Amino acid sequence: MLDPLFCPTGVAVIGVGREEGNVGHEIFDNIRAAGFKGKYFAVNPKAKEIHGEKVYASIKDIPYPVELAVIVVPSKIVPQVMEESGEKGVKVAIIISAGFKETGIEGARLERQVIEIAHRYGIRVLGPNCLGAADTGCSLNTTFAKEIPYKGNIAMISQSGALLTAILDWAKAEEVGFSKFVSLGNKADINEIDLLQALKNDNQTKVISAYIEGISQGRRFMDVAADVSKVKPIIMIKSGVTDAGARAVSSHTGTLAGSEQAFNSAFKQTGIIRANSVEDLFDYAIGFAYQPLPKGKNVAILTNAGGPGIMATDAAEKFGITLASFDKETIDQLKAILPPAAGFYNPVDVLGDAKADRYKMAMDIILNDENVDSLVVILTPQAVTEIEETAWEITRMSKAFPNKLIYACFMGRSDVAAGVRILTENQVPNYYYPERAMATLSAVISYINYRKQPPKTYKTFYAKKMLVKETFDDARKIGRLNLPDIQAFEVADAYGIKVAKSVLARNIDEAKEVAGYIGYPLVLKIASPDILHKSDVGGIVVGIEDEDQLEDAYNRIIDNVRRFLPQARIWGISIQEMVRGARETIIGVNRDPQFGPVILFGLGGIYVEVLKDVSFRIAPISEQDAYDMITEINAYPLLRGVRGQPGADIDAIVDTILRVSQLVMDFPDIVEMDINPFMALNKGQGGIAADIRITIGE
Amino acid sequence: MLDPLFCPTGVAVIGVGREEGNVGHEIFDNIRAAGFKGKYFAVNPKAKEIHGEKVYASIKDIPYPVELAVIVVPSKIVPQVMEESGEKGVKVAIIISAGFKETGIEGARLERQVIEIAHRYGIRVLGPNCLGAADTGCSLNTTFAKEIPYKGNIAMISQSGALLTAILDWAKAEEVGFSKFVSLGNKADINEIDLLQALKNDNQTKVISAYIEGISQGRRFMDVAADVSKVKPIIMIKSGVTDAGARAVSSHTGTLAGSEQAFNSAFKQTGIIRANSVEDLFDYAIGFAYQPLPKGKNVAILTNAGGPGIMATDAAEKFGITLASFDKETIDQLKAILPPAAGFYNPVDVLGDAKADRYKMAMDIILNDENVDSLVVILTPQAVTEIEETAWEITRMSKAFPNKLIYACFMGRSDVAAGVRILTENQVPNYYYPERAMATLSAVISYINYRKQPPKTYKTFYAKKMLVKETFDDARKIGRLNLPDIQAFEVADAYGIKVAKSVLARNIDEAKEVAGYIGYPLVLKIASPDILHKSDVGGIVVGIEDEDQLEDAYNRIIDNVRRFLPQARIWGISIQEMVRGARETIIGVNRDPQFGPVILFGLGGIYVEVLKDVSFRIAPISEQDAYDMITEINAYPLLRGVRGQPGADIDAIVDTILRVSQLVMDFPDIVEMDINPFMALNKGQGGIAADIRITIGE
Repeated sequence: MLDPLFCPTGVAVIGVGREEGNVGHEIFDNIRAAGFKGKYFAVNPKAKEIHGEKVYASIKDIPYPVELAVIVVPSKIVPQVMEESGEKGVKVAIIISAGFKETGIEGARLERQVIEIAHRYGIRVLGPNCLGAADTGCSLNTTFAKEIPYKGNIAMISQSGALLTAILDWAKAEEVGFSKFVSLGNKADINEIDLLQALKNDNQTKVISAYIEGISQGRRFMDVAADVSKVKPIIMIKSGVTDAGARAVSSHTGTLAGSEQAFNSAFKQTGIIRANSVEDLFDYAIGFAYQPLPKGKNVAILTNAGGPGIMATDAAEKFGITLASFDKETIDQLKAILPPAAGFYNPVDVLGDAKADRYKMAMDIILNDENVDSLVVILTPQAVTEIEETAWEITRMSKAFPNKLIYACFMGRSDVAAGVRILTENQVPNYYYPERAMATLSAVISYINYRKQPPKTYKTFYAKKMLVKETFDDARKIGRLNLPDIQAFEVADAYGIKVAKSVLARNIDEAKEVAGYIGYPLVLKIASPDILHKSDVGGIVVGIEDEDQLEDAYNRIIDNVRRFLPQARIWGISIQEMVRGARETIIGVNRDPQFGPVILFGLGGIYVEVLKDVSFRIAPISEQDAYDMITEINAYPLLRGVRGQPGADIDAIVDTILRVSQLVMDFPDIVEMDINPFMALNKGQGGIAADIRITIGE
Repeated sequence: MLDPLFCPTGVAVIGVGREEGNVGHEIFDNIRAAGFKGKYFAVNPKAKEIHGEKVYASIKDIPYPVELAVIVVPSKIVPQVMEESGEKGVKVAIIISAGFKETGIEGARLERQVIEIAHRYGIRVLGPNCLGAADTGCSLNTTFAKEIPYKGNIAMISQSGALLTAILDWAKAEEVGFSKFVSLGNKADINEIDLLQALKNDNQTKVISAYIEGISQGRRFMDVAADVSKVKPIIMIKSGVTDAGARAVSSHTGTLAGSEQAFNSAFKQTGIIRANSVEDLFDYAIGFAYQPLPKGKNVAILTNAGGPGIMATDAAEKFGITLASFDKETIDQLKAILPPAAGFYNPVDVLGDAKADRYKMAMDIILNDENVDSLVVILTPQAVTEIEETAWEITRMSKAFPNKLIYACFMGRSDVAAGVRILTENQVPNYYYPERAMATLSAVISYINYRKQPPKTYKTFYAKKMLVKETFDDARKIGRLNLPDIQAFEVADAYGIKVAKSVLARNIDEAKEVAGYIGYPLVLKIASPDILHKSDVGGIVVGIEDEDQLEDAYNRIIDNVRRFLPQARIWGISIQEMVRGARETIIGVNRDPQFGPVILFGLGGIYVEVLKDVSFRIAPISEQDAYDMITEINAYPLLRGVRGQPGADIDAIVDTILRVSQLVMDFPDIVEMDINPFMALNKGQGGIAADIRITIGE
């Protein structure tokens, strides 16, 4: 669908000025310089010729088919140019010009107008306000960047054009190549989702890396990303993570930043590798692009210096990477070839006087050990160290063991540079610091774990959907968007969520009757449409053991409420079954503008409010997701059972989370929902929702 | 004291071989090449001449005074050479030779022998098994590294010689200079403490950076580091932080790695800036060395690209750095000179078409704002960006505003290189990624906060020291190193720690009498020298409200214990006051082999056991330290008071921590101590130690 963005049959650059420095002129020159083999044309009503080639007054005058238009005219002329491009049969337009949404209301209007024209002609639009795109496969460079990327297998997508210029500058120095290079600009049409889809099947691309500031179609993004991630790694920076950052985003591109938790969940659920900085992005991209995916998570470390070996070990531990345990044979072989003062276990220390041959012998032994999936080779430039020869040995090993991942860590910058060049030219990434090699390896291991996951399974429960719909409709009719307890309980019950028995009593006699039916102990709660925080007005009494206490509590609650909120309407009092001996948990739902319902899990009370020990996932939630979100909170041992105490019924929590997930997916009108507490009983005994709050939208 | 290590009157290299590649030969060449202005001599019984200069058969033959001997002979000959050096009047010996403690028992013995000789002659020893040292101030380089450091104001100390070679290689490429450069080797004599002391008053040194794997005199290290930190920043990598890493340390240098918590506390308490990698170390060292300390924590960000501006903002937020709020005047001035699409708030976006003059004008306005303490200038190499001219403008600003910290962030590697060179040559550090600039700024801000702290005050309480001594002596006499409850309570009481009333009752009648005296409610605990975990055998009953319950509980406990542990000796039952309505906290002590008593604070029960939400400090603890350790736990809001609940008596906790600190400083024989729980009552009501466990050493 995006094909002509990369390898079009004909390209027209519209707005090629005569003078150097003119952006259109530079793009035209870049297309020439990159050696694009297809036809390309310059358009400018005022110019006649550029570099001896004809300049056309209008795209319509070009006597060949044109699939791709690169538009560099002032923003006000863009609609006219788009019309002409449409008439010419253009399939994709790259609008470089600025002066659209990013400048305010007027610009946004102009942008909409352009997109309407595009839709009318079936033109896909990249930009506006972008740097252009490059495809090293067909040598097409429509950017106005000073640098042109080398050929490689990393695709780079960026919502910041300026960042691309920095990345190109870095890539030039480090000799890193790209497959495609795309500046998204304002994302008026083509966005990261389109590109993920296009790049999934691009043979040239092994790794997709991206810088984004916001996402507009969260749900589709997740579906596409999960699908693409199974085929090739996606590494992504999402900036604007903090409140202060989010403010900067809105003033920059007019995109609303998604909430941090939603993005983190989305990335986790779809296997996207999140990079926290451009430095991480570079490191990870090369780490994935140059080396194979290892079979497992066991790494061996080889070093000619103790200190850096310790640092690498520290970093492995920090990132949860397992140090491989060698076979006895491996250790014996290492002992046979290394000096007695060497380290034979993992990390293997070949000592400061190691030359290339000693590195080679040690690598050969280590890589032949089946327990080793990956190898990090550390080199410090000591007096007798053979930097270049050792680099060659490493590259040979990398070719001899094509299923094992090898990273180098040549430390320094100056003398080691010659070795680093040999390594990178031969697709062995070099990291100047052990910590960065380990951070990258950790990203690789997370990714292989994602790929190994079985396909996600989504349970579907029987649910009384109509009943919920009617409840919501009724509530909306009377303008009651915060559902009263009893209705909220009915909604949950309709989705098979076990709720505490709860009946509204309008007077003390009814209360006694209900109590007899439910059985003691009981909880009493004021039922009033005017009271949101019941406990603040003395509207809740727990632990009622008999009829005397019931009567006393009933009257006390009514008195309290009359005193604190004389004007509150009182419907009566909810008489509710009291659950004892359970762990209080919370299952909550919040609707994220980008991703839809985000589900929260945690232990109740202070664990949520003070310690903020909660986990998030975006609905719909698979069984595995639900289980993971329970086990990833810090307080999970309390649910599993500590100090001889019985564990909680995890299955019941999983079941309830999944039912909530189905409910909020079925009803997008649920804005917020809290089951707080969900009382998790002991293993095998289930759990009960003791209080539920649901807010629906208008 | 270490002076001749750096600027000796005469230097002798002992063990200068004739052939190139010989380590002694290389060191001698390095001394020549560095241009040392003092006298230096070569020693070798077998050689006559090197580079036309006389080689002496023994150091004693040198007809000039020699203060510094650099020893490069085989380890077995070192004792003899040391004797001769002593007779010659050498003050410092750098022993390059390996073959000592790092090789095993034999080597350790040889090392001790060498140190004995050194002590006899009053020689200080650097090494053995080290790379040597360099002092760019007097152009003395006694290392055998291939590279010689440039002159600069960063001192570098390393326990890994190999790491120094990597650092030199990096420094050469980045043109970073050093004042001193010292390889510690086995630290048989001179260690990091000596060097911190020596460097404190070294005018050439502005920043002290170090890589260490272990520390042997924790207490002195802290005293010296705290003192030096007040004068100049100390940046330190401590490797072997994890269990796996710690193992690698022991096999590498035979140093016992200190526990991670103890090191973290020691660094925090002494203002040492901890670097987590060599990359951090470099970044921080330059950040401190090149720029002034800012007055406060408010940073301004200036950028020519939105994306990197957002990243910088995100990073600032992550590191807790405050974005400066500009004066209205500043914003007005920026509006007057920048294009309308620019960003006028913080971050200031001068837009992609900004040339050097626009950067200059914006910097001038921003730096004149009194709310701005620091400025980070981001540059992406866009089409019209003037990289070098902008770099010059920044360096000029740095000179014009000598009290404001300025970091550059020129992103890329290739085209920006020319600008980066201008910056670093003019002492403006460049960070290639906004996150790294912010991480460094965060280290700088922590350091200025440390410097701003008032001198620490240590309270001294009246204590019955003799009573405690006698208690310990008695306990040791009968081999009871785990103090029984009653004694532990006495010890705490002797230091003014408020303890729960507790009396041993040997029978039910005594129990009743005691209960009458203490008053209900009560806690009953089995008193037996054979039972450590009382609750496991049903040896504790809480919440006893009256005499009936007392009798019942007394008998129940005796029955339980007889049933579970028929052979246990029973002394009786402790009758203890029961404290209600308090927050359970824990105040614990553990003795670290390097640093001595480490004090722990946390909330009791699951907060310690499951959530591991605790803080640490090394004793003695100042009032500020005690307060900080309370507020830095995650659950602190529970102590401060949440949801309208009253706060706990923080002062009582501080007081108890300080008394514990004094107790364990007075009695180094306390190996472990736990007050668990320390019941913190409501604000103003104090707190009570409800259970205390003390273990003393033999």
